[in-house]
Amino acid sequence: MTADRRQAFVTSVGDLLASWNLPHATGRVYGLLLLGEEPVSLDTIAAELGLSKGAVSTAVRQLDSWGLARVIPQPGSRRLLVEATGGIEALLEASQARARTLIAALGEGEDLVGPGPARERLHDVIGLFAGYVEVGSELLASHRRRRTGPDPAPPSGTAGAAP
Amino acid sequence: MTADRRQAFVTSVGDLLASWNLPHATGRVYGLLLLGEEPVSLDTIAAELGLSKGAVSTAVRQLDSWGLARVIPQPGSRRLLVEATGGIEALLEASQARARTLIAALGEGEDLVGPGPARERLHDVIGLFAGYVEVGSELLASHRRRRTGPDPAPPSGTAGAAP
Repeated sequence: MTADRRQAFVTSVGDLLASWNLPHATGRVYGLLLLGEEPVSLDTIAAELGLSKGAVSTAVRQLDSWGLARVIPQPGSRRLLVEATGGIEALLEASQARARTLIAALGEGEDLVGPGPARERLHDVIGLFAGYVEVGSELLASHRRRRTGPDPAPPSGTAGAAP
Repeated sequence: MTADRRQAFVTSVGDLLASWNLPHATGRVYGLLLLGEEPVSLDTIAAELGLSKGAVSTAVRQLDSWGLARVIPQPGSRRLLVEATGGIEALLEASQARARTLIAALGEGEDLVGPGPARERLHDVIGLFAGYVEVGSELLASHRRRRTGPDPAPPSGTAGAAP
């Protein structure tokens, strides 16, 4: 019963992170790590999720580059342990940044349409997209302020680097 | 030169709408329609975007079901004309609804983790996701109020039906 609920949880995290452009397997690994009270080995992850070791290794590298997981080398061993971090801001911020770039590109298209109803329609659509992305950015900024206090850390350097 | 800029615009709209789960071809068709000052035929769309008539027909059906485009039958002819509408709220609302469902599923997983740091980490991650989705919902609600006046229309029935 609990095993079913764990599977359901892991699948939901995979589905949710897929909407922020993370491969489904990577999201599932993050879901599993979120349930772990201790760091786990790559073998344990592969066994529980029915993934190959290669797939788990790729997923863990992606999570690490997004700041979603921390890889812990074991002294005197090639074995690695992994644990989740709560740092999903970088992922959401990268998604925002990508959307902002696209919206800027749309704005540049406004003069492809002559003045009139078509240009107004385009202007409305771009405005709604832009507002939608902007409120997300504000939330992330205020979240970061709450975590880091009144003198916020600079944005994570990993945000623009990953997929 | 303008043809290049039109292509760039159309590709940007395709990329942007892909992040809200719309097939890339469908987003490109919407981009092209946004540039049109008059309704256009499916053949015109197919020719300009290099898509098959079947692909354009599928894309137009999806846009119609999302309220992103309006199909205009021509009396005495099987030819259809299509024009963009500015109604992207249904698309964004469906994306929000999907995210809310997933976040609710994550919340149900909180008791899969014993009390302690792991549960706090999970609680933080779910809280940030939930807040992120919530601010988007508020923006859409206020946008809808601005468009419809103080007595808002009920949410579009198409929002949950499409992909």
